Amino acid sequence: MRVLGILGSPHKDGGSAQLLLSALKAAEKEGAKTEIVSVYDGEIKPCIGCIHNEEPVCKFPCIFDDFGKSILEKINQADGLIFSTPIYWFAPSGPLKILIDRITCLENMISYGEPSYMEGKVVGAIAVGADAGGPWTCGYLITTFTSMGAIIPPWGIAYSYKGNKAIWDDKALMDVINIGLLVIKMIKLLKRGEKSQLTYIDNKNLLNEIRSEVLKELKHIKEFENYGRKTISRGNI
Amino acid sequence: MRVLGILGSPHKDGGSAQLLLSALKAAEKEGAKTEIVSVYDGEIKPCIGCIHNEEPVCKFPCIFDDFGKSILEKINQADGLIFSTPIYWFAPSGPLKILIDRITCLENMISYGEPSYMEGKVVGAIAVGADAGGPWTCGYLITTFTSMGAIIPPWGIAYSYKGNKAIWDDKALMDVINIGLLVIKMIKLLKRGEKSQLTYIDNKNLLNEIRSEVLKELKHIKEFENYGRKTISRGNI
Amino acid sequence: MRVLGILGSPHKDGGSAQLLLSALKAAEKEGAKTEIVSVYDGEIKPCIGCIHNEEPVCKFPCIFDDFGKSILEKINQADGLIFSTPIYWFAPSGPLKILIDRITCLENMISYGEPSYMEGKVVGAIAVGADAGGPWTCGYLITTFTSMGAIIPPWGIAYSYKGNKAIWDDKALMDVINIGLLVIKMIKLLKRGEKSQLTYIDNKNLLNEIRSEVLKELKHIKEFENYGRKTISRGNI
Amino acid sequence: MRVLGILGSPHKDGGSAQLLLSALKAAEKEGAKTEIVSVYDGEIKPCIGCIHNEEPVCKFPCIFDDFGKSILEKINQADGLIFSTPIYWFAPSGPLKILIDRITCLENMISYGEPSYMEGKVVGAIAVGADAGGPWTCGYLITTFTSMGAIIPPWGIAYSYKGNKAIWDDKALMDVINIGLLVIKMIKLLKRGEKSQLTYIDNKNLLNEIRSEVLKELKHIKEFENYGRKTISRGNI
Repeated sequence: MRVLGILGSPHKDGGSAQLLLSALKAAEKEGAKTEIVSVYDGEIKPCIGCIHNEEPVCKFPCIFDDFGKSILEKINQADGLIFSTPIYWFAPSGPLKILIDRITCLENMISYGEPSYMEGKVVGAIAVGADAGGPWTCGYLITTFTSMGAIIPPWGIAYSYKGNKAIWDDKALMDVINIGLLVIKMIKLLKRGEKSQLTYIDNKNLLNEIRSEVLKELKHIKEFENYGRKTISRGNI
Repeated sequence: MRVLGILGSPHKDGGSAQLLLSALKAAEKEGAKTEIVSVYDGEIKPCIGCIHNEEPVCKFPCIFDDFGKSILEKINQADGLIFSTPIYWFAPSGPLKILIDRITCLENMISYGEPSYMEGKVVGAIAVGADAGGPWTCGYLITTFTSMGAIIPPWGIAYSYKGNKAIWDDKALMDVINIGLLVIKMIKLLKRGEKSQLTYIDNKNLLNEIRSEVLKELKHIKEFENYGRKTISRGNI
Repeated sequence: MRVLGILGSPHKDGGSAQLLLSALKAAEKEGAKTEIVSVYDGEIKPCIGCIHNEEPVCKFPCIFDDFGKSILEKINQADGLIFSTPIYWFAPSGPLKILIDRITCLENMISYGEPSYMEGKVVGAIAVGADAGGPWTCGYLITTFTSMGAIIPPWGIAYSYKGNKAIWDDKALMDVINIGLLVIKMIKLLKRGEKSQLTYIDNKNLLNEIRSEVLKELKHIKEFENYGRKTISRGNI
Repeated sequence: MRVLGILGSPHKDGGSAQLLLSALKAAEKEGAKTEIVSVYDGEIKPCIGCIHNEEPVCKFPCIFDDFGKSILEKINQADGLIFSTPIYWFAPSGPLKILIDRITCLENMISYGEPSYMEGKVVGAIAVGADAGGPWTCGYLITTFTSMGAIIPPWGIAYSYKGNKAIWDDKALMDVINIGLLVIKMIKLLKRGEKSQLTYIDNKNLLNEIRSEVLKELKHIKEFENYGRKTISRGNI
C-alpha cells in the first residue's frame, strides 16, 4: 500500500511540509509505504493541451520527458495521494497547478477505452497559509480529483493559517494525522473488497433504460402536482 | 442500504429532478432502497447559529420542530445521500443552503464526544442550470460533506447546463447513473469491510508523538538542503 | 449617496454585525447615508425559479409580497451595498443565499429590455467565522454581483476568523473600514463621471464586426506561428 | 490608456485567444492602446515564496530575471488588464497560476510603505473550456485581483464552453466585447475623477475611533433585542 505525498511548496521545512510529513507518518503507522516528492525539485513543463487537438494524443505517459514525468509515474503507482500546498492567492501554488494539468494524461486514458488511471486512488488535501483560503484551496483539489475518479475519504481535507508554525496548530495537526490514517484505512477496506467494482461504466443500454423509466415517472409526478406541497411520490417509498 | 435523494429545486420535473431520479434508479438496480425529499416541500427554518453560543446547544435533533427536522432524520438514517440542485448564481438553491446549515446539528455531535453522525455516509452531488456553474456548485457540496465526515466516491459529481432538457444530455445522464451506482457500490464495499474504522480519532498522545518525529526529521532535511534540488530524503524511501 | 448594509447573521452583535457596522460608519464619514437590514428579521420566501418557465415572469418587483420584498426595494434604491455574513460551511448563511436568489428579479430586467437594476451599484463583501472559509465566501459574493452588473471597488472583500472577537481583529477591521470608504469614494467618482456609460450593450452589428476582425487576425497569427515562441503579433503593438 | 491582454493558453488561435482578441478590439474602439502577452511564450519561474521569509524580500521587480519579469513590467504599466484562460480542471492554466503567484511582488509593495502597484487597475476575466468551470475560474481570478487592489467593472467576467468555437458563441462574444468596453470606460471615468482617492488607507486613529463607536452602538442594540424581530436600530436611519 503506497501513499505518495506531493508537496506544492518551495520550502521543505515550512508549514505545508510539516503537515504533509505528519500525515505520512500517521499513514506509516498503519502500514503504508510512503514517499514525498516536491513539485519544486525539477522542471515540470506546462501542459500544452494536446487533448483539444482534432486527434487527441493526450495519454500516459505524457509527451514531455521531464521531472514531471517521474512524478506522474509515481502517482500512477500509488494507491493513495496526499497533496499539501501553500496557499498562494487562495489556490495551490503554480507549479502544483502545472502538475495537476499534466495529470490529465492519466485521467484521459478513458478516451482510449481504458479506465482513468486515477480511478479508485484515495486522495486527501492539505493547505497552509499565513491567512485564510484553506477551504477554497482544498475544495478545489478534491473537486478535481473526484472528477478524475479518485475517492475522497471522510475528513479528506485539512488546513492551517499558522504558516511556518503549522506543526503547533493542534487542530490542523490532528486533522492531517486523520487524513493519513483515513487514506490508508480506506485503501485497506477497498483491497479487502473489490476496488475494481468502483469503475465508471459507459453503458448506452442502461442509459436508455433509465431515461425511459424517468420520463415515465415524471409524467406521473405532474399528475400529482396539484395536490399541494408533497414529497415526490414514488412506488418504492 | 438506504440512499436518500435530496432535491434542491422548486420544479419536481425539471433538470435537477430528472437527473436525481436517474441516479436513484441506478442505485435501485444495485439493491438500494431509495427515497426523494425536496427542500421546497415544507418550511425549513434558518439555522440560528447556536453553535457559537458560549454553551453550545447545537446537537441532533435540532431545536426546530419543522419540516427540516423530518429531512434531518431521514439523512441520519441514510447510508448514502445524493444532492441535486438547480444552479442559482453558481451555488445551491437558497433552501438547500438552509438545509446544509441545519445539518450542522448532525456533524456537531463531535462536540458531545460522539462521532459526527455524517461520518462514513457516501455522498454524491448533481447540479443543473441553463448556464455554467456546475463544478463550483458541486465542488462546494462535496467540500462541505467531506468536512462533515462523509465519503465522496469516484466520479462523485455531475452537472449539466441543459436546464429542463438535462435528461437528454447523454454525458450528464451517464455521469449521474454512475453516481447512483458508485454510491451504492461504495456502501456495499464498506459494509463488507468495517465502516467503523473510518472514524475521526482525537488522540493527543499520537499527536505529540508524530509532532516530535516530524520536528526531528525536519532538522535532518535542513542539513541536506544545500546539496541542491532534491526530493526530501527520508529513511523509508 | 445611499449605502445599504445587508447582514446575513442571526446575531445582531456578532462578528459579522461588528464589521458591517464598522464599514458603514466609515462610509458615513465620507458622507454616505447608511442603513442596515438583516435577512433574519422576517420571512424571505425562497425563489421558485420563475425565470425558467416558458414565458418568464421574473421581474422586479418579485411576485412574493414578504419581508424579502422590502429588502429588494432598499437594494434597488441603494448606490452601494455591503454584504456581511457569518461563514456557514464555507458560504453565506442560508437566508442570505435565499435573498441572493431573489435578487434575480432585479438583474433579470435585462430580459425586458431594461438594464439590470443592479448595474453600476458598488458592492463590497465581508465574511466572519470561527474557522477559515472567508475568501471562498467573499469570492462567491463578488462573482455573483459582478455577474449582475455591479462594480467591485479595490480591496472589495474582507474576512476574519475571529468570530465574536472580530472587532478586535485589527487587520480585518482596517479592511472593512476601507471597504466602507472605497464603496462611497467609488460612488462619488462615478457620479462625477457618468455612471450611465457603464451599461451592458447588446449590439449585433458590433458583435459581427469584431468577430470578422478577429477571424481575419487569427489567420495572420497562424502564418507566423512557425517562427518560434513569440508574443502574438498585432498591428498596433 | 493601456489595456494588457494576458493569454493563459498554449493555443494562439483557440477559444480563449479568440475571446481575448475580441475584448481588446472592443477596447480599441474606445481608444485603448492594447497589447497581448501569452504566458506560454517564455519561461516564468515559479514564485519561491520570499514573502514568508523572516525578512521579506518580495518587492517589484521580482528577483527572477526571466520572461515573467517582462510581463510583470507590462502589467505594472497597464491601466487595465484582461485575463483569458483555458479552463484546466476548473481553474486557470498552470503557467497563468505561476504568473499570478509572481504578481505578488507588485501587490506586496504595501509591505514597503507604498500602495499596491495593482491598486486601481481595472481587471476583467475570461475563461473558455470544452466543459463547464467558467464561473469558478473567473470568480477565482477576480477575487484574487480585488484582493490586490484592482477594480472589477460591471459584467467583469465572461466564459464559454464552446472550446475552439467560442468565437461563434454569441452570448460569450457579446459578454467579452462588454468586458473590453467596460474596462476602458471605467478607466476613463476614473481618470476624469481621481483614481488616487481609491487607495487603501492604514490609519490607526480612524480604526480606534470606529471601533469605539461600534462597541458603543452594539450595547444599544442589545437593549432593544427583546422587542422582537426588527431591523437594527441606528440613529441615522
